[in-house]
Amino acid sequence: VTRRDEPLPDLISDAREGNARAVARLISLVEDASPRLRELMELLAPLGSLSGGAQVIGLTGAPGVGKSTTTGALVSAYRRRGQRVGVLAIDPSSPFSGGALLGDRVRMQEHATDPGVFIRSMASRGQLGGLSWATAQALRVLEATGFDVVLIETVGVGQAEVEIASLADSTVVLLAPGMGDAIQAAKAGILEVADVFVVNKADRDGADQTVRELKGMLSLGISAGAPGGWTPPVCKTIAARGEGIDEVVTALAQHGEWAAASGSRERRRIARARREIEAIALTQLRARMDELRGRATLDTLATGVASGELDPYAASDQLIAGVTS
Amino acid sequence: VTRRDEPLPDLISDAREGNARAVARLISLVEDASPRLRELMELLAPLGSLSGGAQVIGLTGAPGVGKSTTTGALVSAYRRRGQRVGVLAIDPSSPFSGGALLGDRVRMQEHATDPGVFIRSMASRGQLGGLSWATAQALRVLEATGFDVVLIETVGVGQAEVEIASLADSTVVLLAPGMGDAIQAAKAGILEVADVFVVNKADRDGADQTVRELKGMLSLGISAGAPGGWTPPVCKTIAARGEGIDEVVTALAQHGEWAAASGSRERRRIARARREIEAIALTQLRARMDELRGRATLDTLATGVASGELDPYAASDQLIAGVTS
Repeated sequence: VTRRDEPLPDLISDAREGNARAVARLISLVEDASPRLRELMELLAPLGSLSGGAQVIGLTGAPGVGKSTTTGALVSAYRRRGQRVGVLAIDPSSPFSGGALLGDRVRMQEHATDPGVFIRSMASRGQLGGLSWATAQALRVLEATGFDVVLIETVGVGQAEVEIASLADSTVVLLAPGMGDAIQAAKAGILEVADVFVVNKADRDGADQTVRELKGMLSLGISAGAPGGWTPPVCKTIAARGEGIDEVVTALAQHGEWAAASGSRERRRIARARREIEAIALTQLRARMDELRGRATLDTLATGVASGELDPYAASDQLIAGVTS
Repeated sequence: VTRRDEPLPDLISDAREGNARAVARLISLVEDASPRLRELMELLAPLGSLSGGAQVIGLTGAPGVGKSTTTGALVSAYRRRGQRVGVLAIDPSSPFSGGALLGDRVRMQEHATDPGVFIRSMASRGQLGGLSWATAQALRVLEATGFDVVLIETVGVGQAEVEIASLADSTVVLLAPGMGDAIQAAKAGILEVADVFVVNKADRDGADQTVRELKGMLSLGISAGAPGGWTPPVCKTIAARGEGIDEVVTALAQHGEWAAASGSRERRRIARARREIEAIALTQLRARMDELRGRATLDTLATGVASGELDPYAASDQLIAGVTS
């Protein structure tokens, strides 16, 4: 048996026993959009469940607020509690993946040899909801192979933040005094996705003002909240020294309990699955169209449209019929 | 009959008689993704043909090379020849459209009252091949309503340039001494899409060197060329004074003749129709999925995936079956 063709059930059971290389190989199948992905997802499905599984924690915030440092500190905190931790670092703008980005993540290096920690940098893939889809499938791998906590950290800004939040059970929005302050974050729409706020670099001037601004905006109802009522707590940290991190872990545990009890977790997970299914369906339909290009169908339709014998909507109807028959 | 509901056949015949407001209304239907778009395209189809129609000319080049000025000078040149000219200015990054961008296009203002010239700024739309699709449909409107030449100018860079080139019968790549030189353009991949090169601002230092660099690269075969052989000519212009523009018009006419005779024009137009059909089909399939969201189907599938009863690929199969039955 070659490495590439190692049976998936064996890889999965190795991964569930804590073999990091097996986990990495499974995630690579996701990243490479392997033809074996369908079989993999079929095997993983029964291993997940709506109520159990990992707590998926998204970390978002402007560049410079200390996301990597905070992620590293959270990994340490969860490890002290005996939890198995996965980290997915997503860079939507990068074509590179597979760990190259991690060289400069100093705080991560201390976990590099810890078998209870799995760290992976992922690039986004393709254009049809690539980020959500590949990340959702990587989450599925980590959950089904027994990770207790998965941290998703994004290098990007803007849309990527919101997309990551849509994948998480609990989203941490990081701010730092003077760097991407609360009002800017409000404008960027990232306050609305927060379940827990962290004001990092709390030893800097202006930290208390940032906290006050945040609480002011929360009292104005700018955060999404939820029916049944979760008010995002505001934690102060100095992640580089590990200060305040235990409070963040506590806040996340409380949010996790609230989300499970209120149905929020289940609703988010169903929404996540819905987007994943749609992305897969569109990608498969596009692939079928590409196959039709190999055959004469699409060329015939295109020639008809180019020559004015057919209008493009009638051609699209015929293409859809061809793809789906 | 309200303005909005004016019968399409009337609008089309007004547009063919040179009524600029009718042309503008038809293009607005494209931009707004009107529900009447299907009917419009059905009515327009028989008015186009593979051999006849407008020469569609794409203009690409780095910011600062003088694209708007050159476009304006080309419009004047074609008007002197009695041609009816359409201009589509595409800004893929802008959510605004409908002419707002044109305020600062000084060279265009002299054509604002000329009924033989139609100028429109378009924003790109949506994500599924939005730029190509809306632009392809706007081209269809202009061709079917009797324009002889359509100039497509893009404000964007990179991918947008290549996309615009894929819509055009003839693509002009603009360079200027010291601004986006030939080697940078080669790196960006835009040399390969050139049918005609224009070195604008030819009175500046370095113009001759830019021409030499370009010809050197052409002799190395860096331009795509085509079997049957078209070597892109290199024209020097000072567009702000109209100098060298007649040579560009001549080069474009020669390319147009070559493209028609060699089959290149037909191949490009079929490829353009193929992308348009695919984009419409994907958009329609996505719309059908959204309808399923209103009903219970997609939520049921998503719940199944979230709970581990279904894998996402099996769910996608069911979604596709639901969408296409």
